[in-house]
Amino acid sequence: MTDAGTTAAVAGYGGVRAAVVGTGLIGGSILLRLREAGLDVTAWDPDPATRDQARGRGVPAPETVEAAVAGRDLIFLGGPLPTLPAFLPRIAGAGGPDCVLTDVGSTKAEVAEAAARHGLLDRFVPGHPMAGAESAGLAAAVPTLLEGAAWVLCPGPGAATAPFRWLTGLLLAVFGARVVPLTADEHDRAAALASHVPHLLAGALAGATQRTAAPDAVLTLAAGSYRDGTRVAATPAVRTVNMLLGNREQVLRELGGVQAYLEDLAQALRSGDTERLTALYDEAGATRALLTNRAYTDRVREFRADGDHTREVGWLREVGAAGGYLADCQVRGGGVRYVARLPHLVGP
Amino acid sequence: MTDAGTTAAVAGYGGVRAAVVGTGLIGGSILLRLREAGLDVTAWDPDPATRDQARGRGVPAPETVEAAVAGRDLIFLGGPLPTLPAFLPRIAGAGGPDCVLTDVGSTKAEVAEAAARHGLLDRFVPGHPMAGAESAGLAAAVPTLLEGAAWVLCPGPGAATAPFRWLTGLLLAVFGARVVPLTADEHDRAAALASHVPHLLAGALAGATQRTAAPDAVLTLAAGSYRDGTRVAATPAVRTVNMLLGNREQVLRELGGVQAYLEDLAQALRSGDTERLTALYDEAGATRALLTNRAYTDRVREFRADGDHTREVGWLREVGAAGGYLADCQVRGGGVRYVARLPHLVGP
Repeated sequence: MTDAGTTAAVAGYGGVRAAVVGTGLIGGSILLRLREAGLDVTAWDPDPATRDQARGRGVPAPETVEAAVAGRDLIFLGGPLPTLPAFLPRIAGAGGPDCVLTDVGSTKAEVAEAAARHGLLDRFVPGHPMAGAESAGLAAAVPTLLEGAAWVLCPGPGAATAPFRWLTGLLLAVFGARVVPLTADEHDRAAALASHVPHLLAGALAGATQRTAAPDAVLTLAAGSYRDGTRVAATPAVRTVNMLLGNREQVLRELGGVQAYLEDLAQALRSGDTERLTALYDEAGATRALLTNRAYTDRVREFRADGDHTREVGWLREVGAAGGYLADCQVRGGGVRYVARLPHLVGP
Repeated sequence: MTDAGTTAAVAGYGGVRAAVVGTGLIGGSILLRLREAGLDVTAWDPDPATRDQARGRGVPAPETVEAAVAGRDLIFLGGPLPTLPAFLPRIAGAGGPDCVLTDVGSTKAEVAEAAARHGLLDRFVPGHPMAGAESAGLAAAVPTLLEGAAWVLCPGPGAATAPFRWLTGLLLAVFGARVVPLTADEHDRAAALASHVPHLLAGALAGATQRTAAPDAVLTLAAGSYRDGTRVAATPAVRTVNMLLGNREQVLRELGGVQAYLEDLAQALRSGDTERLTALYDEAGATRALLTNRAYTDRVREFRADGDHTREVGWLREVGAAGGYLADCQVRGGGVRYVARLPHLVGP
């Protein structure tokens, strides 16, 4: 357990009244962690059996979503991706005018557009915690699922900046999150390669197996590379399909890049070009090594707490686009002070 | 630790004098486990520093390969794949006429052809333990690396059958291996999809990352799907390239099947065909589920110990092609008795 595990670490957020709407794997894990950290939580899910499960775990779960979110300071919106744009104005209306809203959907552009349409940009902070599992439902949820996770939040200028700062502080304190500030479009493009395309590759590898001469022998010989490379093919199909359709253009674009690299590898193999094949793998290996071995430098920046926050938001988005994340965010005495952690430049 | 961890479990093999030639990750792990199980072992590696390392661990490691294998009952041949065909006759000549030979290379057709050319089919049993890691060298070797692994052995008729049976019994007793009997060609075809193509996909995903708009943000958002899907891209490039070139035709054929499935997925996504996309993922998910959840039935078969073994070898190859493996092999009173574990039929 990190410092985030103690209630002391959430000082300043201990009195927050939060609600989680849609308590599947991700929403449920958020719910359990919020409660563990000592926050006042309520829950709602469209499935009556899931509401019963929440009650069985000691979380108030009223029959209607309106009752669950009434009087709350913060609402996390989860559930199937296509339902989020419609649910957002509904919980916003029931939650009161000062309530901060965020979601946990795996794509951000569509829900951000819905928020703009309904005039909710001032208090809706689009979010996406980068964690998950092949399992599903509140029964599979655990309070540690999102501990230390990269958690994208989309900062906006003007009135939107204050809720962003406040939510950032809460996620740092409660989840030990690495808060990554990105625009909705930048998120969707990066997530396409960081999460959605890998689901396509896993599906293709597992799916092609049954069409080979001896699928049973393939499964028996399956080494770590096959096991790891197909793991997310076991994700419930509906969840994967919603994710891919929700980010279609970006996924197809990034997939094109991966297919091109794959064809480069195949061409080098076909022609027995050892040198080219080795160079392509050296490049791939250098990138993979950065996942486990990337050096970061801390940068501290302060901004005035008032104003239109254009410079602040511009800087935040630069941090995220550069692969950085926020490690601290303190609002004090008319100013806001951030600590960002930025990776050293990734060479070619 | 399983039963394989105790010296008692290797009764009947305790007096075996074994040598391991090429003590990298796989060979080194075999060496350490053989010694742990109480066998008399020697080692040789072309790298003097590696020989020193072996000595540092208490294993005799003479300066020449000839000295290391002289008087041994069994030689495991490891090391870089392209070196195996040339090393095989060299260790066969130095090891004496009754010495059983096996290798641990990731492709089998080429080394089996070399054995045939040199008249070694009667005592060379082509082998491939299906395990590994991104790390390399004796320093990374551990005696548990191959515990319980699927371990392909290629049975041959006539005089080749007795060494196959004897080595099967040793691998079951010492490593708790699941011995998978396959022809060299069947192995290479199954391994192409079970191991080699996943390395191509991992290379493409990691390699394409640097060519995107914001590679740093992709790495920061990298979820489990990306981490798992790129893991083997960190394997030393030379090892991956040797493996792919050593099985080129089969790898390109199986890659074609995966590329076709990937294009099916992309086409369904492009056209927004939810139903088709879901059906493709349901099929992929059902196959992936078999990896962790496959039911087996035991089959016992007995054969005469003498004769030309054509029926015995035919049955063994059927077991492997059906996704089965050997769980026991006992030679007693003029007969041989196998217990094979066969998966229930994999439906479409």
